[in-house]
Amino acid sequence: MSPKPVLHTVLSPKLLDIYDIKNSIVVVIDVFRATSTIATALYNGAQRVIPVDSVDLCIRMGKETSGITAGERDGKVIEGLAYGNSPAEYPRSFIEGKTLVLTTTNGTRLLHLALNNSASEVITGSFPNLTAVCDHLIAQQKNVILGCSAWKDRFNLEDTLFAGAVINRVKDYFSIHCDSSLMAADMYTLHKQDMLQFIRKTTHWHRLAAYGLEADLEYCVTPDVANILPIYHKGNLVLL
Amino acid sequence: MSPKPVLHTVLSPKLLDIYDIKNSIVVVIDVFRATSTIATALYNGAQRVIPVDSVDLCIRMGKETSGITAGERDGKVIEGLAYGNSPAEYPRSFIEGKTLVLTTTNGTRLLHLALNNSASEVITGSFPNLTAVCDHLIAQQKNVILGCSAWKDRFNLEDTLFAGAVINRVKDYFSIHCDSSLMAADMYTLHKQDMLQFIRKTTHWHRLAAYGLEADLEYCVTPDVANILPIYHKGNLVLL
Repeated sequence: MSPKPVLHTVLSPKLLDIYDIKNSIVVVIDVFRATSTIATALYNGAQRVIPVDSVDLCIRMGKETSGITAGERDGKVIEGLAYGNSPAEYPRSFIEGKTLVLTTTNGTRLLHLALNNSASEVITGSFPNLTAVCDHLIAQQKNVILGCSAWKDRFNLEDTLFAGAVINRVKDYFSIHCDSSLMAADMYTLHKQDMLQFIRKTTHWHRLAAYGLEADLEYCVTPDVANILPIYHKGNLVLL
Repeated sequence: MSPKPVLHTVLSPKLLDIYDIKNSIVVVIDVFRATSTIATALYNGAQRVIPVDSVDLCIRMGKETSGITAGERDGKVIEGLAYGNSPAEYPRSFIEGKTLVLTTTNGTRLLHLALNNSASEVITGSFPNLTAVCDHLIAQQKNVILGCSAWKDRFNLEDTLFAGAVINRVKDYFSIHCDSSLMAADMYTLHKQDMLQFIRKTTHWHRLAAYGLEADLEYCVTPDVANILPIYHKGNLVLL
């Protein structure tokens, strides 16, 4: 029997380069709200999501692909873009068959770091596609990095809770000797029954709830409501 | 009434520069074992502890100060130095009135980063001096950074648990809106009753227990057994 693959949790993009991620699957986690919105758009039939890290690039790629441009700052659609970061903006009736060009900062930065560090595969995860992520990791039997996008490099709880939810499901299939993973699993176990209350204590909740996004945030921690697997391929996130 | 000072927890030296630490008190935390040993040596009457980040500097400072040189690698005293990193090596009968020149990597690095970033004061903390740290922070009414030394920049549980123990005691006196602090407080609350069992799950325990250091590690998570406050002053850690 070959040894189990290794799983690590990385709590901030700034800590990614401590780890050897060659030949690993990197799960980019940005629960509030980029990877929740990505899962939702693809679940609802978007052809692809193009993650970009600047408004200028978003506008340019939107023109090149005839895609929908999207991005928010301080809870409002960024000037020059057409839509926001809310998963609720992308029902099937609107997004099916279309290209979504999504500007995010934290998640996109981590995704590019992972590619630059030779990850063998990059997928995105959040509660809406929890089971799809777990099933894929178990099936692949490769080393895994659960990459929390954090907020401006600061540790955040919602990404950590998702990492813990994944570990809770996949732990029998991996070798896990990593304090970040132990902590994430503990935090998830501690709060899985009071998740909707607990996330109201997080820093990000306070930042976003001020913009009236409570329903969005509750959706983002609801398991399997958009249960597909986004995988990065040549600049696009597409369905596996 | 003036607003409460702000407290943040920093989970790795690599994340320190995200925070504005000017005019803040930085608590350097390296539970296994540097800051536990520092508290113990000063509690037992050491005149001062000089933290250094290299073996060469340790040897040179040892000569200049007629001090005791100390440092370990892989559980053994480093060649060229006289003693190890264990708090048990520094009873009053041995260390009273002497200078200890201590080589550490993680804790010393964080300490120098804090000084370079204009911290107003640097103190060291671990469970053996928990109450002294908390009393000082409450009395000073300044902004606080609880700085976890981590291990080669990787998040570790034992430093986080100590941060949580401090937060648990001082939270009424500070404004705390920081997911790292929320998590640390939760982890401490979850494990304060089973600390001696829980630390056996940590990565660092596995690393050090292999060298037969279990008694050392249990001492390092015992509150108030060396309850003094080490403060950094012109290259030395001394009693406040």
